[in-house]
Amino acid sequence: MSAAPVSSGPRPLIGITMGDPLGIGPEVIVKALADPALRARARFVIFGLHDVLEMAADQAEVNPFWWRMPLDHGPRVSSGVLVADFDDLPPVRPNGRRGPDPVAGHASFRFVDTGIRHLRSGAIDALVTAPISKHAWALANHRFLGHTDLLAQRLEARRVNMLFVAGRLRVALASDHVPLFELRNRFTIGLVHQPIDLLDQALREWFGVERPEIGVLGLNPHAGEEGLLGDEEQRIIEPALTLARSAGMRVTGPLPPDTAFTPHVLERFDGVVAMYHDQGLIPIKALAFNRAAQVTLGLDVIRTSPDHGTAFDLAGRGVADPGSMTAAIELAVELATTRAARRAAAPDAASVR
Amino acid sequence: MSAAPVSSGPRPLIGITMGDPLGIGPEVIVKALADPALRARARFVIFGLHDVLEMAADQAEVNPFWWRMPLDHGPRVSSGVLVADFDDLPPVRPNGRRGPDPVAGHASFRFVDTGIRHLRSGAIDALVTAPISKHAWALANHRFLGHTDLLAQRLEARRVNMLFVAGRLRVALASDHVPLFELRNRFTIGLVHQPIDLLDQALREWFGVERPEIGVLGLNPHAGEEGLLGDEEQRIIEPALTLARSAGMRVTGPLPPDTAFTPHVLERFDGVVAMYHDQGLIPIKALAFNRAAQVTLGLDVIRTSPDHGTAFDLAGRGVADPGSMTAAIELAVELATTRAARRAAAPDAASVR
Repeated sequence: MSAAPVSSGPRPLIGITMGDPLGIGPEVIVKALADPALRARARFVIFGLHDVLEMAADQAEVNPFWWRMPLDHGPRVSSGVLVADFDDLPPVRPNGRRGPDPVAGHASFRFVDTGIRHLRSGAIDALVTAPISKHAWALANHRFLGHTDLLAQRLEARRVNMLFVAGRLRVALASDHVPLFELRNRFTIGLVHQPIDLLDQALREWFGVERPEIGVLGLNPHAGEEGLLGDEEQRIIEPALTLARSAGMRVTGPLPPDTAFTPHVLERFDGVVAMYHDQGLIPIKALAFNRAAQVTLGLDVIRTSPDHGTAFDLAGRGVADPGSMTAAIELAVELATTRAARRAAAPDAASVR
Repeated sequence: MSAAPVSSGPRPLIGITMGDPLGIGPEVIVKALADPALRARARFVIFGLHDVLEMAADQAEVNPFWWRMPLDHGPRVSSGVLVADFDDLPPVRPNGRRGPDPVAGHASFRFVDTGIRHLRSGAIDALVTAPISKHAWALANHRFLGHTDLLAQRLEARRVNMLFVAGRLRVALASDHVPLFELRNRFTIGLVHQPIDLLDQALREWFGVERPEIGVLGLNPHAGEEGLLGDEEQRIIEPALTLARSAGMRVTGPLPPDTAFTPHVLERFDGVVAMYHDQGLIPIKALAFNRAAQVTLGLDVIRTSPDHGTAFDLAGRGVADPGSMTAAIELAVELATTRAARRAAAPDAASVR
């Protein structure tokens, strides 16, 4: 079955990396893909350890829905779900105490590195990454700060930002893992302009929004109240907006942050840009807990992930909520499908990217 | 009718200041009190201009439900709603362009100042303040930064914090109208400890929570991730928590801010303390837009207000949403009733405050 009965061509092939074998990744993947409706929307290849997935399925009382395939066969998936089994790796036994472990760390690194290779070659249409432990990567001597760092290096992307998506709510972050008061030293026009630029491009190319409307938050209470409560809006955010407008983007701001996530304001925008981690993440998690997924902006490939970590304390107990993993898989399917439709409609325009 | 048929004694007498006559205050008061069920829960006195309220009722198509009384009669209200009319003031004509105006500013100042006097004397049980314009106060030569500043001075309160309430969601702010990066210079153990202390007291005395559980947010992403993403949690917030615990309070933190407003976390606490304006206001407005009200912590009297401003641009068009004013009135009634019940049950304990 090489062509699915949908008008937009064959169903996309989505790669999923299993994440840390000792975290909740295997469990939430198995629980998410246990839904036949989700499986019907795409073809899937899971990069991981077959034994660990089987154990997770057992614990979650999910009947296996996949075929095992040795890794070196490559991700040739005609339908359904294949597990590309890294059977050259030492086994990881997820019994007893769970936490950062070098064997598990090396395995999770290999899954991601392999997934990126297939993403880069075009063998898969999008990659969904289950959570890894940075600490475990360090124990295994893999010196990357995380998925995004590895992706940016392998794909030679110089500009990346995080985008969180829950339905129509789309929030890009101008900065992320920075101590709040240290942001003062990094808060530049470029820092604010970059996520506007990348979000605009993603909304058009991946989300299929022809003329995106973007809202940009202020930094200070009441967006600075015309300079009374801080001048970063005037010195930095407004020039970044001017720059974006001069490139033809439709941007509004700086928005008072406290009302930016109310229904009346959100409905005006296809996406918003938050200035710092919690300014964007607090409302995303408050409004859409366990329904939000992340996309990396700035890559020329599609990579999504859930918005949670390995949660070693929850792993192996069968209690992990697969909501965010489901959202990440659905988002990958949606973005890959939209991109393919755009490319089919305008092959020249799409190849510019 | 001096005693209402409720077991907890006479219904409380709630004062309401009309706010800036050119803002949406008169409209949202009239719309909120148009609900007979709300009117039945307490007795009310509105400090304001009778003409302006009548016009607002006309525009909102609400039948007058109040009696007019010249101000100098004092707030002796046996039932229903009285308007204490400031008929010595020059009239304010809310026609044409609305904005900060010295005549309106002076009037709104007088309403609040009079309300505070009656609150202080015990003639009213709580005060609800509709929005004023600080700019209009300045034009009228009243040099206070707003309601809270005036209240703190008149009531000689040295420690005040803002608390926002929407149902079970109660969020106190450790800091409010401070430029975000300037907070670095003011971020002290005392700044974090004070709202914990005041919230604990308010939860017991006004909300009737016997042994309050308080959650305290971190400042940095992931609450600093053990110092990797900032050290204010270790240097400042944890010592403030230790101080609170040594005084017998039940506090948990520093909580990672991004998950603090998810259902699983919120249900563990009777109230939470946010470190800065938008950390608390973004989730309150996202989760409970137009249903949240503010209470001033640190006063020995009850004062509530809606969470919006004068909204001059909306005023006079009949489109203002009274949700937050309704919440502010309901909260004032609830807190006054709970406090009265506590005082009746333990008169000695209550008089300590």
